[in-house]
Amino acid sequence: MTTQQIGVVGLAVMGKNLALNIESRGYSVAVYNRSADKTTSFLQEEAKGKNFKGTYSVEEFVNSLEKPRKILLMVKAGAATDATIDALKPHLDKGDILIDGGNTFFQDTVRRNKELAGLGLHFVGTGVSGGEEGALKGPSIMPGGQREAFELVRPIFEAIAAKVDGEACTTYIGPDGAGHYVKMVHNGIEYGDMQLISEAYFIMKHMLGLSTDELHEVFAEWNKGELDSYLIEITADIFKKQDDETGKPLVDVILDAAGQKGTGKWTSQNALDLGVPLSIITESVFARFISALKDERVQASKQLTGPEIKPFEGDKKEMIEAVRQALYMSKICSYAQGFAQMKAASEEYGWDLRYGDIAMIFRGGCIIRAQFLQKIKDAFDRDPKLANLLLDEYFQGIVQNYQSALRRVVTMAVERGIPVPSFSSAIVYFDSYRTETLPANLIQAQRDYFGAHTYKRIDKEGTFHTEWMK
Amino acid sequence: MTTQQIGVVGLAVMGKNLALNIESRGYSVAVYNRSADKTTSFLQEEAKGKNFKGTYSVEEFVNSLEKPRKILLMVKAGAATDATIDALKPHLDKGDILIDGGNTFFQDTVRRNKELAGLGLHFVGTGVSGGEEGALKGPSIMPGGQREAFELVRPIFEAIAAKVDGEACTTYIGPDGAGHYVKMVHNGIEYGDMQLISEAYFIMKHMLGLSTDELHEVFAEWNKGELDSYLIEITADIFKKQDDETGKPLVDVILDAAGQKGTGKWTSQNALDLGVPLSIITESVFARFISALKDERVQASKQLTGPEIKPFEGDKKEMIEAVRQALYMSKICSYAQGFAQMKAASEEYGWDLRYGDIAMIFRGGCIIRAQFLQKIKDAFDRDPKLANLLLDEYFQGIVQNYQSALRRVVTMAVERGIPVPSFSSAIVYFDSYRTETLPANLIQAQRDYFGAHTYKRIDKEGTFHTEWMK
Repeated sequence: MTTQQIGVVGLAVMGKNLALNIESRGYSVAVYNRSADKTTSFLQEEAKGKNFKGTYSVEEFVNSLEKPRKILLMVKAGAATDATIDALKPHLDKGDILIDGGNTFFQDTVRRNKELAGLGLHFVGTGVSGGEEGALKGPSIMPGGQREAFELVRPIFEAIAAKVDGEACTTYIGPDGAGHYVKMVHNGIEYGDMQLISEAYFIMKHMLGLSTDELHEVFAEWNKGELDSYLIEITADIFKKQDDETGKPLVDVILDAAGQKGTGKWTSQNALDLGVPLSIITESVFARFISALKDERVQASKQLTGPEIKPFEGDKKEMIEAVRQALYMSKICSYAQGFAQMKAASEEYGWDLRYGDIAMIFRGGCIIRAQFLQKIKDAFDRDPKLANLLLDEYFQGIVQNYQSALRRVVTMAVERGIPVPSFSSAIVYFDSYRTETLPANLIQAQRDYFGAHTYKRIDKEGTFHTEWMK
Repeated sequence: MTTQQIGVVGLAVMGKNLALNIESRGYSVAVYNRSADKTTSFLQEEAKGKNFKGTYSVEEFVNSLEKPRKILLMVKAGAATDATIDALKPHLDKGDILIDGGNTFFQDTVRRNKELAGLGLHFVGTGVSGGEEGALKGPSIMPGGQREAFELVRPIFEAIAAKVDGEACTTYIGPDGAGHYVKMVHNGIEYGDMQLISEAYFIMKHMLGLSTDELHEVFAEWNKGELDSYLIEITADIFKKQDDETGKPLVDVILDAAGQKGTGKWTSQNALDLGVPLSIITESVFARFISALKDERVQASKQLTGPEIKPFEGDKKEMIEAVRQALYMSKICSYAQGFAQMKAASEEYGWDLRYGDIAMIFRGGCIIRAQFLQKIKDAFDRDPKLANLLLDEYFQGIVQNYQSALRRVVTMAVERGIPVPSFSSAIVYFDSYRTETLPANLIQAQRDYFGAHTYKRIDKEGTFHTEWMK
């Protein structure tokens, strides 16, 4: 009986596409799905004539794999993942490797890694980014867990991952939950990027009156420069797409109520736990929440009026360039926050993350892929212990030059009543971070006044309390 | 043997002061502390000659109480609370009432309430606000748990609570975790208020060049009007206080690195779970985080320069009034967010919160006490189902009139490089909330493009997906 080199559990779209990707690189693959009909139809359709073995029980699945077994779990994050692990466990041998490729909360991965290690099993929590298409053609892959287990699956990951300049977009991230953690921050950064782009769109549409055709041109142009990235590219595409039914631009008939699946919110919640200011991504999450209050907003728009909007009378082209600079600078601030959060997490959870390598594997396959990530890699090459991207010479140069554009865009938007939550939190973050003395001395005085929380002084060491009411 | 009417476990400062407050209202009180010396010294000092009974074992403590027993736990939130409950449990009888007056996370209260209810014990999770002084002289009290248990302790709560216009600042909040939840949101709002005040201070100091004496005058004056509140009052006091050592204003020698004890962060994390935009409080939490990065900021201030700051040349008095209006409007937006979060929580957790009553009990005893809370009560009297405070006629009137001041203050601060995270998130929230059509249509298009997440249309029901690349 021949055995398969790797097994995939779960044949929803991400599982199927990853399985097809793996097989296409020359591996034999066993597949298993809880409901057998999915397995059958997969074998009859996408997998037809390929090197797959369909299995119809957990036992048959496990027995079809070469040892140490490599099993990729592509089931729903949460209870379904625990149930799948429980079903597999009795059939596994020491040294077998479970790979969780789902969108799992990193603390769950930490827990599972620990529990399974106690049984002699390896658990590689692996962030996979790139959506359906990436899964099929080459995602960005962020594996965390036992290093020795990673080494055994590394050839497969390197074979299926996206390639940029010949390098596979995958690297060992760190122990236990590190891979899923970095994927979580990736998704948070994705929320920030999308919100920033949507604010740039909103300003150019409402302040400058650009048509969708013109917006297409602007984003296509931007994609040739510093902003070159997948999200800018698809934004350009989107403005070109016509709605077949109405003949209008499709973007104009889409309801402005954004959905979300939770990973952006996790990033913000974790930043709050770690004490990391992550304002831009968090404002992006809140912006989606407000967008979802469509009915309330329609009601509020009838009761609450904004300022009278004067038509824009300046040079449109110059203003478009200001918006571009504002977008790039805000994006830099957002990544500065995200990478600062990874740094705090690495220290808190003992992961020893390599930030430059993480930037490198974000360059291809994933949603936030962008030329700009090479600049982050360069910055960490210059200083692996860099506290904040804004302090790197390249980024420092950009933000020094672009800050006046960002200030101009934010003030014009605020004057005109156009909401720019992420742009404005970006300039506020920049100004807070570069301000030697903030007004938190007053907050400390208040806390000591009402709660005897004590304070520190600027002129000597120690902790002090004042009887303020005397 | 006579029995005591209520028992207090835990004689740290909050426990001592609440015990003294209760005894001063004519109740007999048994006290117990894990380390006996605290009990002894309390009886020899603060409690001397008063109606206290000191006890030195859990058993003695429990047996000294009249039935059904009323036991106020004033121990550290978390594991210490569980340990105390476990120690008490074997000695209690059905119908006894445990009251947790600590700063407990509401989900812990939900869990404990459920577990103890299974044993026939009542558990009243009670938010207590007002710091040390409030505990002694009259705090704001937010009890949640079994209604029938609350009714039995109600006379004590009403006796010890702060009074405003003859009404006690306590009311039944709702089942299980509702009391601690409302206390948590109270603390989040407190973070927002403090940050807003510190931004007003920062602008007047750096843009208008006001001295601490002048700042004292401004805040004292503000405290006579719409902003009349405890935090404005103590801020005025703070600017008057001189440092004995240096002769400088004390506020100027306090280090600008704000501490925090976690309840503000909980509010933001819960808002993220509930899908509620809570940007102002969250920016306030992040502002504390940035303030704590003192060393990094000192370094950054040497590398990153801001705009050249032109001296302010307008009418100072007029600008101070603009800052006042900006502060009041931002405060309204912050409370609008906080009360919207309570509404979402009430629906999510099935609590049936009465928002007007909550505003009423915030009027006295607690840190955010303010005249302005009566306006919130009035708003919910006009419409108990009010979706958002901004839609109430009073608040609508204020924000319509004050928005131009807030826009002016934010744009001037952004132009000058003065960070105003909460002010700017307030105007952005206002503009987002009153905008019928936001740019989230683009976000939905992007999500559908790369992840087939589908979207809704503005012109018909249903869920749609587009093959964008065709």
